Amino acid sequence: MLAIMPALVGLIAIIYALVLAKIILRSPQGTGRMVEISGFIKEGAKAYLKKQYSVILTIALIIAVLLALISPRMSLSYVLGALSSVAAGYVGMWVAVNANVRTTYSAKEFGLGKALRLAFNGGMVMGLMVVGLGTLLVAVQYLLYGGTSEAVKDIVGYSFGASTVALFARVGGGIYTKAADIGADLVGKVEAGIPEDDPRNPGVIADNVGDNVGDVAGMGADLFESYVGAIISTMFIGAVAIKNIITKGVVALPPQASDWTSWVIVPLGIAAAGILSSIIASFFVRVKEGGDPSKPLTLSSVISAVIVAIVSYPLTTLLLGHEVGVRVWVVVLLGLIAGIIVGMTSDYFTNKNKAPVMKVARMSQMGPALTILSGMSYGFLSVVIPAIGIALAELIAYILLGYYQFWLGIYGVALAAVGMLSLTGIIMSADAYGPITDNAAGIAEQAGLGEDVRSITDKLDSAGNTMKSISKGFAIGSAALTALAYSAAYSSNIAQVTGHGLQKMMSLLSILDAKVVSGMLIGIALPAAFIALVIIAVSDAAFVLIDEIRRQLREKPGILEFKEKPDYGRAVAIVTTYAIKRLITPGLLAILAPIIVGFVLGPYALAGALIAAIVTGLLLGLFQGNVGNTWDNAKKYIEEGHFGGKGSEAHKAGVIGDTVGDPLKDAAGPSLNILIKLMSVVSLVFGPLIVQYNLLHLLGFT
Amino acid sequence: MLAIMPALVGLIAIIYALVLAKIILRSPQGTGRMVEISGFIKEGAKAYLKKQYSVILTIALIIAVLLALISPRMSLSYVLGALSSVAAGYVGMWVAVNANVRTTYSAKEFGLGKALRLAFNGGMVMGLMVVGLGTLLVAVQYLLYGGTSEAVKDIVGYSFGASTVALFARVGGGIYTKAADIGADLVGKVEAGIPEDDPRNPGVIADNVGDNVGDVAGMGADLFESYVGAIISTMFIGAVAIKNIITKGVVALPPQASDWTSWVIVPLGIAAAGILSSIIASFFVRVKEGGDPSKPLTLSSVISAVIVAIVSYPLTTLLLGHEVGVRVWVVVLLGLIAGIIVGMTSDYFTNKNKAPVMKVARMSQMGPALTILSGMSYGFLSVVIPAIGIALAELIAYILLGYYQFWLGIYGVALAAVGMLSLTGIIMSADAYGPITDNAAGIAEQAGLGEDVRSITDKLDSAGNTMKSISKGFAIGSAALTALAYSAAYSSNIAQVTGHGLQKMMSLLSILDAKVVSGMLIGIALPAAFIALVIIAVSDAAFVLIDEIRRQLREKPGILEFKEKPDYGRAVAIVTTYAIKRLITPGLLAILAPIIVGFVLGPYALAGALIAAIVTGLLLGLFQGNVGNTWDNAKKYIEEGHFGGKGSEAHKAGVIGDTVGDPLKDAAGPSLNILIKLMSVVSLVFGPLIVQYNLLHLLGFT
Repeated sequence: MLAIMPALVGLIAIIYALVLAKIILRSPQGTGRMVEISGFIKEGAKAYLKKQYSVILTIALIIAVLLALISPRMSLSYVLGALSSVAAGYVGMWVAVNANVRTTYSAKEFGLGKALRLAFNGGMVMGLMVVGLGTLLVAVQYLLYGGTSEAVKDIVGYSFGASTVALFARVGGGIYTKAADIGADLVGKVEAGIPEDDPRNPGVIADNVGDNVGDVAGMGADLFESYVGAIISTMFIGAVAIKNIITKGVVALPPQASDWTSWVIVPLGIAAAGILSSIIASFFVRVKEGGDPSKPLTLSSVISAVIVAIVSYPLTTLLLGHEVGVRVWVVVLLGLIAGIIVGMTSDYFTNKNKAPVMKVARMSQMGPALTILSGMSYGFLSVVIPAIGIALAELIAYILLGYYQFWLGIYGVALAAVGMLSLTGIIMSADAYGPITDNAAGIAEQAGLGEDVRSITDKLDSAGNTMKSISKGFAIGSAALTALAYSAAYSSNIAQVTGHGLQKMMSLLSILDAKVVSGMLIGIALPAAFIALVIIAVSDAAFVLIDEIRRQLREKPGILEFKEKPDYGRAVAIVTTYAIKRLITPGLLAILAPIIVGFVLGPYALAGALIAAIVTGLLLGLFQGNVGNTWDNAKKYIEEGHFGGKGSEAHKAGVIGDTVGDPLKDAAGPSLNILIKLMSVVSLVFGPLIVQYNLLHLLGFT
Repeated sequence: MLAIMPALVGLIAIIYALVLAKIILRSPQGTGRMVEISGFIKEGAKAYLKKQYSVILTIALIIAVLLALISPRMSLSYVLGALSSVAAGYVGMWVAVNANVRTTYSAKEFGLGKALRLAFNGGMVMGLMVVGLGTLLVAVQYLLYGGTSEAVKDIVGYSFGASTVALFARVGGGIYTKAADIGADLVGKVEAGIPEDDPRNPGVIADNVGDNVGDVAGMGADLFESYVGAIISTMFIGAVAIKNIITKGVVALPPQASDWTSWVIVPLGIAAAGILSSIIASFFVRVKEGGDPSKPLTLSSVISAVIVAIVSYPLTTLLLGHEVGVRVWVVVLLGLIAGIIVGMTSDYFTNKNKAPVMKVARMSQMGPALTILSGMSYGFLSVVIPAIGIALAELIAYILLGYYQFWLGIYGVALAAVGMLSLTGIIMSADAYGPITDNAAGIAEQAGLGEDVRSITDKLDSAGNTMKSISKGFAIGSAALTALAYSAAYSSNIAQVTGHGLQKMMSLLSILDAKVVSGMLIGIALPAAFIALVIIAVSDAAFVLIDEIRRQLREKPGILEFKEKPDYGRAVAIVTTYAIKRLITPGLLAILAPIIVGFVLGPYALAGALIAAIVTGLLLGLFQGNVGNTWDNAKKYIEEGHFGGKGSEAHKAGVIGDTVGDPLKDAAGPSLNILIKLMSVVSLVFGPLIVQYNLLHLLGFT
């Protein structure tokens, strides 16, 4: 019954989010042109999401029917997970597309401080919906399903549902946003020589829509998935592996820690602490006129982390007793620290005022090839510290709890992910703030507002960019930890199904075993194939959009002289159709690949494929996220007047770097987060079946 | 004493190589300007190699002294390995820089057929030196050291020595060749608008030198290392693990297969078969006037593979008896097949007449960003089939021999690498042929020879390019298999040192174990850091060279009008200095990283780091090799007149793609081959020490 507390906290978050949404929708949205542009964006975003969600829900329905054959309750949870993700994404995006124009208006009428609050509150709706819905519904399912070990197994369906939506939303949104961005930029900025967000560009509305469907709805679904995934996989290890060793008497724990349900409640408790800390931290997001809005944004994350660190001490020690609780508390801290390391590294490599970005900008003087090459080298370098940081957090978490018994150590690894993800509320808020201010700046430009308004919206926009790269690192780091937790849950499940003891299980999953190694070799191919499919889709879609924009500018020469109106709708429709068409193959790849590997090569090869896909996904995810932001900011650094400023050779090279980086950082890279989580959760769900039926086993090789 | 046979075959190869070299050096080298240019190239290459080898041998000497503390005989083998690699590289390169001008002359005087033979014979010297020296010296050491299990352990030093040289030669050569290439191209072709290989370009000689020090000496050292590495690691598993299970009676094998020395001889036998097959196949490299020289080149590899497949059947069945021998024979076939799959996939993705290259060329019409993006997507896609192919070859090899006992299965995995590498002789020959004809074409251009001569040299050059991408795939595929074999040898060694039984050993190396997983997370960071260091070095060196070339063209405006002579020497000196300075950090990283991981986190985390570095290295190695060749050929495809041909927007974009791809395919990518092998062999050598002394163990966590 302890799960009622986190459920209540989740409910509070949702209510608070709805109140914020209402306040935003009530605030004035300005006049004439501003409202018109905002209307275009809203319409385009709604039309896209409607199509996207209908495709996703069709696929989800098929999966739900199949799941019902395994467990009807799991199938129910699956549908619930899918709908939660859609709901969080939709509400978040709806508020975002309404908050953008109001932020512009606020900047015009009331100045920086109010505009910041409005934009941040807009992002906060998304942040709170994600953590509120997740915590509430996981806790409620746990209670309704009777709080048993079987209950937790079925709740995995919730995570699976969330993953399914997240994958397609990330991939589809990513293709959309980047095709529109590249298309609009290449013709607009490079060929026609008109500035960004200029209303004469026929692709401009598609570009603005993209920010919302990709960066708000897509990112929201991604973090929602990590969030519930980390919580549920930790609960799973508690309810299956820890319950097993406690009931069998394999491990002797102090009395308070001997109730396995405490281990199931801990992740929910940390999640609830994270929600409260996010709400408190949000009040620190304010800025004086003329101040730098990026500081309070970063500060709020730090405050949130400190609060979680403090609150989780009494929480863990109360639930598990002092001796065990302190160790668990340190594990939560490790997760937080790892999150901060990943974020700070991303910041260093992508910050305009740090050496890497400056060097890439300097190299750009020698042409785009050196922009690309130097950027890539920093992108690869940026992987090193986070990888080591996550490795050490994982190892120490394991050592701290593995002190009692092996499976407790594995639980520690999973819980570190929960610790990191306890910051989801505040980080998601700050991240969703980005596209709102990006749109606000776009609306200010298109509506032809004065220099003073534009300088405010640009400032807000630029603060959003700093947070963006931090949250990108956070998303991939937490995804890797969550996926590791899931793959551990998968192994603990296989151990239970096969009845293998720990020693036997471990040796079956040895990197000396050729099945595991062959699985690993196949595992690296999956992120590679996935990236390839997403990038090809983006380039193809951009190619088609470029053709369309060029056609409009050619056939209606009056557009460039403001004499004719471009057909925004056609550009939006083209990108929509393309994105929807091209999200299906990579999506199915992610779902089917683990199933095929499992049914052909068996559960141990699948475990190898999972771990390889996870570490490769972490590598390529961090690389793509950081390199994209490095190029983006190198371009901005040049635009500030360095190395010749706008229009110089260096700038042209910078624009090319930025264009290359866009689909890496906003489409292919983030999709990897979900790929590795989805693969893991699919394996967890189908694991028991795979143990029974797989080709290698049927042929007699086991 | 059976080892005398392969030793003799190795000796034959060396003698044949020296005879070929003599024939080449005796053939006429033409006149005046041709000889002068060839002289510049020779001088530059000699000067660079002298500096490079003196740095490498200094480092090698330090390592040799340290190794002597572990085992003096291993230290001796180490020195021998380093010197063998230097000798093969130096002789091969010396012949190459002499064969280039003679090929040009041959094309001028005797036509395509003779010129092809001459250039191919030039490459063959390198190919035969590599396989001849390797097989001869490994066999001789085995005989001299007494043919014991301890003897084989010490021979690992030979591979370590070869790795050390290979690493620095690949990295240094890679930095040199690509910095020169990019520098010369960016200023020459792009800015000054003069054609490739034009004598007015102050960087042109540096560029020609680069082809030799990078593609001949570097590639030679790389394949030499894979070649001896695969042979020695297979011998190691035979002499340590198989001997152990046979003497302990763990496995009951048919009588002939029960002598462990047979298992040690098999890889040497396959290597000898490969040498003979290469020599026979080389006679098929001929072409009629007006024919296509790329066909006989590809054909010769196929012929060589068929001969090995046929010859190894009696060889394995004689050595190991029919029952076991047939299984071993199939394992050799699997290695050959995997090699062909990797080569064919590389060919598909990089061939001018196949869809991927054409599509990248088409995308280039929309500017360089889409050239880069579409190329990257195909690069990632190109990893999928080889990864699955290697995975299946590895798994089936394991199943076939693991049927008897686990360690025989592991032996199978290693032997598959030997099967693949039995083609080294012919593939290395065809690969070294490339830079010779590339230089020959360059000399024809610079010496202002007629259109007819240039059309022949261009034809020869273009045939070399097809082979280049095939051999690049071969190099990384075989490196991955060799490294896997080494990491298996490492585990078998640790098992012996610790006295752990197989079951215990396997569970210690489980992907469920947090030490192994943390090692894997760190393992992915190593290739990433390595790539970053190499690319940064290339970009920095190119940056400096560009400055120098611009300075010369500015200060001596007469150069462009043929009135003043550029200072080639200064450009050569600058690149030399830079490449030498910048090869040290990545080189030390490769050697020290496994030592640090091992001594801090212990032998099991190190095993995790190894396997993760190997699979990631395979992924990034294939990606970089293929994407670079795709861009290269997309540019060439456009130059043939498609999408506007030379000078069009598409062409400019293609040139940028090519420039980005150059350091990936010729510096960072190939260096990964050696990184993963070197890390594995370092681990094997220091494994026993690491077991005793490591921080985690000393702190009480084991």
